[in-house]
Parts: sequence; structure tokens; C-alpha cells
Amino acid sequence: MEPSAIVEGLRHLVGTDVVVDDREVMSSFEIDWTGRFQGRASCVVRPASLDHVAKIVAWCRDGVVPLVAQGGNTGLVGGSVPDSSARSVVLSTHGLDRIRDVDLVAGQVTVEAGVTLAQLDTALVGSGWEFGVDLGARDTATLGGMAATNAGGLRVLRHGTMRANVVGVEAVWGTGAQVSHLDGLVKDNTGYDLAGLLCGSEGTLGVITALRLRLVPRWPDRCALWVACHSWEDALALATRARLEIDGLDGLEAVDAAALALVQSELGLPPLFAPIPEVALLVVWAGWGDPPESLGLLVADHDHVVAQDGPAWRAFWAYRERVTEAVARKGIPKKFDVTLPLRRLAEFIHRVSDALSQHRLVLFGHLGDGNLHVNLPAAGDDDVALDDAILRLVADCGGSISAEHGIGRHKAPWLHLNRSDAERETFRILKAALDPAGVMNPGVLFAE
Amino acid sequence: MEPSAIVEGLRHLVGTDVVVDDREVMSSFEIDWTGRFQGRASCVVRPASLDHVAKIVAWCRDGVVPLVAQGGNTGLVGGSVPDSSARSVVLSTHGLDRIRDVDLVAGQVTVEAGVTLAQLDTALVGSGWEFGVDLGARDTATLGGMAATNAGGLRVLRHGTMRANVVGVEAVWGTGAQVSHLDGLVKDNTGYDLAGLLCGSEGTLGVITALRLRLVPRWPDRCALWVACHSWEDALALATRARLEIDGLDGLEAVDAAALALVQSELGLPPLFAPIPEVALLVVWAGWGDPPESLGLLVADHDHVVAQDGPAWRAFWAYRERVTEAVARKGIPKKFDVTLPLRRLAEFIHRVSDALSQHRLVLFGHLGDGNLHVNLPAAGDDDVALDDAILRLVADCGGSISAEHGIGRHKAPWLHLNRSDAERETFRILKAALDPAGVMNPGVLFAE
Repeated sequence: MEPSAIVEGLRHLVGTDVVVDDREVMSSFEIDWTGRFQGRASCVVRPASLDHVAKIVAWCRDGVVPLVAQGGNTGLVGGSVPDSSARSVVLSTHGLDRIRDVDLVAGQVTVEAGVTLAQLDTALVGSGWEFGVDLGARDTATLGGMAATNAGGLRVLRHGTMRANVVGVEAVWGTGAQVSHLDGLVKDNTGYDLAGLLCGSEGTLGVITALRLRLVPRWPDRCALWVACHSWEDALALATRARLEIDGLDGLEAVDAAALALVQSELGLPPLFAPIPEVALLVVWAGWGDPPESLGLLVADHDHVVAQDGPAWRAFWAYRERVTEAVARKGIPKKFDVTLPLRRLAEFIHRVSDALSQHRLVLFGHLGDGNLHVNLPAAGDDDVALDDAILRLVADCGGSISAEHGIGRHKAPWLHLNRSDAERETFRILKAALDPAGVMNPGVLFAE
Repeated sequence: MEPSAIVEGLRHLVGTDVVVDDREVMSSFEIDWTGRFQGRASCVVRPASLDHVAKIVAWCRDGVVPLVAQGGNTGLVGGSVPDSSARSVVLSTHGLDRIRDVDLVAGQVTVEAGVTLAQLDTALVGSGWEFGVDLGARDTATLGGMAATNAGGLRVLRHGTMRANVVGVEAVWGTGAQVSHLDGLVKDNTGYDLAGLLCGSEGTLGVITALRLRLVPRWPDRCALWVACHSWEDALALATRARLEIDGLDGLEAVDAAALALVQSELGLPPLFAPIPEVALLVVWAGWGDPPESLGLLVADHDHVVAQDGPAWRAFWAYRERVTEAVARKGIPKKFDVTLPLRRLAEFIHRVSDALSQHRLVLFGHLGDGNLHVNLPAAGDDDVALDDAILRLVADCGGSISAEHGIGRHKAPWLHLNRSDAERETFRILKAALDPAGVMNPGVLFAE
């Protein structure tokens, strides 16, 4: 079908105001925020109801027109932008922006897919509850996109990834089937886990239109410590003890000496420690009242600084949260988002440091989950051989080539490093069964 | 294929010692422990390796021979016993009984499907870790069966159901594909959630042979309170406050006056409270050191009794754990395992009490999850009209007809009460894709 016929067909289907083909308006939907992934769509549709989404999916299925669902478009692997064919329809979820229900008894909410994390957080202020997933892109990332990519972030250690926080889903599958299971019953063994299957499917099986999410108590008190560690092994040993001994552990983040040096030099942050330690570990606690004694005992043998909640909090977090910004100031970086088994994380760091000895390396990440962000400032993003070498090293250490960003278009050629032929064949069987026309985000997850 | 040909074929495939067709040995595999579900198999196979399981599944697929995977056979809905055709092969996982790996750094284990919950618990003593799912059948229930049925139990409130505790799976799908993904990486966004799909699939998609499980800290200190409540509304209000205010909340169980009276009269337990309250709520805390002050504040306005860990602990739990035994002493009961939205739980209890006013009703369950066990002592298990009426009432109150026991054969005719045509059609599409020969536990989940 020609792009003009696609636009005309969709306008006839759901109305002129839902379908955008103005090139200027469309352009922001055709490129990701990092500028690394860009394509061209036939049009952008902005449905505001499940009924419209279902009609659009069925129409794309029948006409074999590629459909790319897009939330906040904050992904990092090219999973939410169209290819360059000018045939794809981008389905923006921004019109699905209602918070349908806040259930203070169950501690759950029902949100439509286009609600942002920040919107949800604002709606919950004063309720005693909050959402357990948090990440840097909170002002833009939508909950539908976060579910579709099984987003992780800063509190996975305590609350799990999106999949663990989704207790119900409303969606349209590639088959055209509309399903809605938003009762939010935590114990509900009535068939296959459709919600879990959609989480992490990156728009390749269906379009999520609404979610039932579990909430967690919004603890009133919190405390964070930066701890100076003399090595990654030292930091990992502390992290393991923290996970065993600290009730209310809310985060375990790490930054290396290069990251600390960079936020000092590029952003002017005052030194946390002098001299700069090999690794600094951020231990976060949240709960009621005073932090447990075990928190003080944990760090007794290490230099450390403490922040309670209040004005100092964000300044304290800046040493972790602003590393990306400091890296970006040096030019376009090469970035890897990987997970290593905790037992092999130090080995990986030594091996990747050796392999990249000609580069300046900046390491930081979510240490509690083994999730490491390996950054090469100003290295550019074109060197596919470098991608290949590092992702192979990750797999060789038993790690995952995608921790929390997903596979998208970018990592599809390397999926075989983590997933066997039998697993990828099982993925293809699921894809063929639930998206029989092959129109849901083609090129994502499966290399073409 | 005739039963004798099935036995002969399997003996040729995997060896004589793996295949049992002695009727006396087979009989315990053909009936569930409650005696309510009984069938007849062609033989029982007891493979001890993934390779044998894969061969058996492929052989059953090619010969279109029904295959019923069976773990501890402690299920309550007839999901692990064969039909009466004498054609099914029962695959017992008892030979898959190794604990392959205990990872104290990650806090994870790899177990084969036939390992029991009690075996795992014993293996972890002294490690600082324990498994976060616990249930009454712990000595017999296998981890493979618990995953296949997405078992819940006593600690779902804090740690979730099995699905939330499985971080990797090794399995043979009905297609014959062997998949193994046991790295245990919590952040691992490399494709569809195959482990989550197997959890709760009740043997209808494939056979689980091994699992990677996350562990939780084995907290050294714990404390429990029985609280006298004047109504279910009162108990629910306390439960909601507890979930918001108590760090380290480990359980919220409830028993009604009839249950308390029964454990006193049938088992001779001394009265917890005099007079017997309408509802007694068990609030459990586990952590390090002393319980939080909020625990005392929570129950300040209610009569309550306290137990610390130690000899008194099991005696204290008996008022909840031994209700089933006390009910059984009255004769064969009618039992329902259902979940209600917390906002509608009290409404359901009033309506079910009205509907069953001619019966003596015993109510208890996992109040934190809205999971209620409705028991009718000595009512017998034959009255299908009663099943129908109560399950319809559950659905009418927005509840789930199966909280933690699954659908099995028993509840398959009522699945439509909770799952729409589009959802059940999506289930059938998944089943057809992953079990193309239709041999994996036929009759379970889908009514024939």
C-alpha cells in the first residue's frame, strides 16, 4: 500500500483528527531522542480510546501495514521509531492519558498507556503510596512504554522490574484480539500470563492500552550513604552484606573513579572523597523512623558520607544521576547497558578494562542487580566491531547483552549471544501466533 | 496407540528402568491426595535427565500420546492426574532431584524440578538465605510443580507468587524445543518472558526440568500477633494500615469465629480470646532486632496476644495452619479457593454467608492478598450446582475463581467466568503454537 493510501484509509477508519501526516509534526516521532535512530513513517496516529486502537491494529493486520507503537520515545535501542520505508504507521499513545482508578485499599492504580511516570507520581502525592519503579526519564517515559520494554531503573533491587509491578493489562494483540484484565488480583491463577508476555515484548506482539499497577508504601524517612571502596571486589562484598543485613534497603548504586572525576571536572561537583576512591558505593535506605543499626555497622570500616532526606538529597544523588550528562559533554559516547552475574562482575570489569585499554572508560550502574553501564566518552557510536567485541565479552562472562534497555533494532543482530536457537525459534513461534500478519514493530527483536 | 505399545515404545526410547507399568506402583500416581481426582495411565515414566525428558516429550508429540507432568501431586484441582483413558503417560519429576547450584553472592539457587520445598529449605540452613515462597505442603510439593501451578502460600504479601521468584527456567516445550536460561540475571531484557509463561501453565505447554530461583534473607528475628477484630471490615482496615505502616511485614492471615471454634473443639487448642471474636487477624513481622514501634501502635485499640520466635511459634500458627485439619475431621468438605478485590471482600463475605445460610461456613485465608478459603465442613464434594453458584458470586464481585490452586480439570468449565472469549482464544492460540500436537496435559485449563 502506498503511504497516501495508508493515510486515507486510516482517516476513513478513525477520523481525520486522529491521523497526522504533516511532515513537521511527524518528524519528532521518527527519530529517537539521542538522534541515533531515525526512520520515516507514512503517518502518526494518536488514538484516545481502546476502540480506536483495536480498529487501527485490525486494519494494519488486514492491510499488512507495519505498526510501531510509541510512548515517550525515551528508549535507547531504536525500538520505538519506524524504519526508513515510509510505510509504517507510528501509533502514539499520548492520547491515552487518563488515570482511571486509584485504589488506596489494594494499593493499586489503573493507568492508560500514555500516562508518564511523573504524572502518576504527582497523582499519588499524599496517598501514602507510590509506584515502585523509578528512572531518570521519569518526566517523559510513559508507563505503556515502560511495560513494553520491561523497564528497570533505580529500585529494581527492592521492587523488581516493570513486569513485577504490572498486575493487569488491557491490550490489543496482533491477532486483533482485545483483552482487558484489570482487576489487579495478585493471586489469580486463571490461565497464561498474558501481562507478563507483553512486558518486554517491545511492541512486537501487541499494543498495551492500559495497565493495572501495584503500588508500594511511600516511606516517609530515608537515608543514603556514599561509601569509598578500594576495589570493585570490595564494593561487591559490601553490596552482598547490605542485601542480607539491611531491612529497608532501597538502592545500591556504584560509580567508578573515572565517573567521579568526570562529574567533578565537567559539572563542578565538589569532591565526595579525597583522594577519589576506586569505586564509590551508594547505599540507600527508606522506611519509617531511624535507619537500622546494621547500616552503620556495614560501613564502619570504610570512609563514608551520609545524607538524610531533604535539600541535600538530590545533590547527593547527583554523583550517580548526572554521570550520563557529564559523559555527554565530552562528545558522542559509546554506551553499553549490560548485566553480569554478581559472581563474575569484577572479572568482567577487569577483562573489559584490558580489552579497552586504549579508551577512557567510565563505569557506573545498579550494583545490586549486576547492571553495569559501560561508557566510552567521545568514542562515537559508529564502531560496530567494538559493539561486537564487548557484547561477546559480556556473553562470555555469562552476562546479558541487554539489562534494562531491551533489544530494539540496535541489538537484534546479537540476540543469539544470549538466546539459543531453540529459544529464538520459540520466540518466532510466539510472534507468528500472536502477530500472524507480522506487522507489529517489524525489525525489532528479530533481525531482518 | 494401545497402552502396551506406549509402554514398549517408551522402554525402547529411554530404557526399561525409567518406565513403570506395575499397576500397584502406578496407582499412587493416578489419584490425587484428596481422593477427588482419579484416572488411569498407560505407564509412569521417571526420567532423571533433561535429555530423557526431551526424548519423551518428542516421542509423545510424534505419536500423539497425552503426557501428564506430575511433581508432588499435592494440587487441589486435578491438574496432575491422568484422565481415565489409560492412554496417558504420567511423567514424574521425582528423578530430577538435584540442587545444582547455591549462589550465595547473587542469593539464588538452581534446582531441578523434583526437588521439594523442604529439601531446598534444608539445603539453605546456615546460608543466611531462604526461599521466599512457603506453603503447608512443603514436605511433598516440588518446586517444578509449584512453578507450573504458580503456587502462592503464606508469604505472597511480601515476596509474590512463584512467578515472581523464578528468575530462569530449563524446560522442554510441547514443540520439542529444549530451552535453558538459568543465568539468573534479574535485569535481562533479551526477548519474551518464557519462564513467566510456563509459570501457571499447569503442564499444558511444556515440562519444566529445572529452575533458577531468587532467595530472600533469612531474617533472624520475628514476631507475630493475633488480633481480635469485631468484623471483617475491622480486620480489613487493620490489614490496609499494616501494609502501609509496618516495615518487614511478613504475613497477614485471617480466621473467622467458626474456624477458631473448630480448632478449639476438634483439636483441643486453648482459646485465643474469650469470647471468640468475629475475626482474628494474624500479623507477622520478620527482620533484624526488635519489631518496629508501628506494630504496637497498629493493635493498640484491639485485644491481642503476641508470640516471639521460639517454641511458642508453631503453637501460635496452629490456629491458622490447622484449620484444614479441623475441617477434615467433620467429613468431606466443600472447598473454594478464591481471591476478591480487597475493596469488595467484606461484601462477598456477607453475600456468600447469605447464599449459604443453610450451611455451616468456615472462612480463613491470606487476607493481605484477598485470598479467601471458603470451607463447608461435611458438605461433600459432589454438588456441582453449589460450585456453580459460588464461583458465579465470586466473579460477580470482581474476584478470581482460582487464587492459588489453578484451574486444572476441576475448574476448567468455569474459566469463562474470569476470562473473556478474546482471552481464552488467545490462550488457545498459545497452546496450539507451543503444543502443536495437543498432548501436554489435555483437559487441563481448557474444558474438553
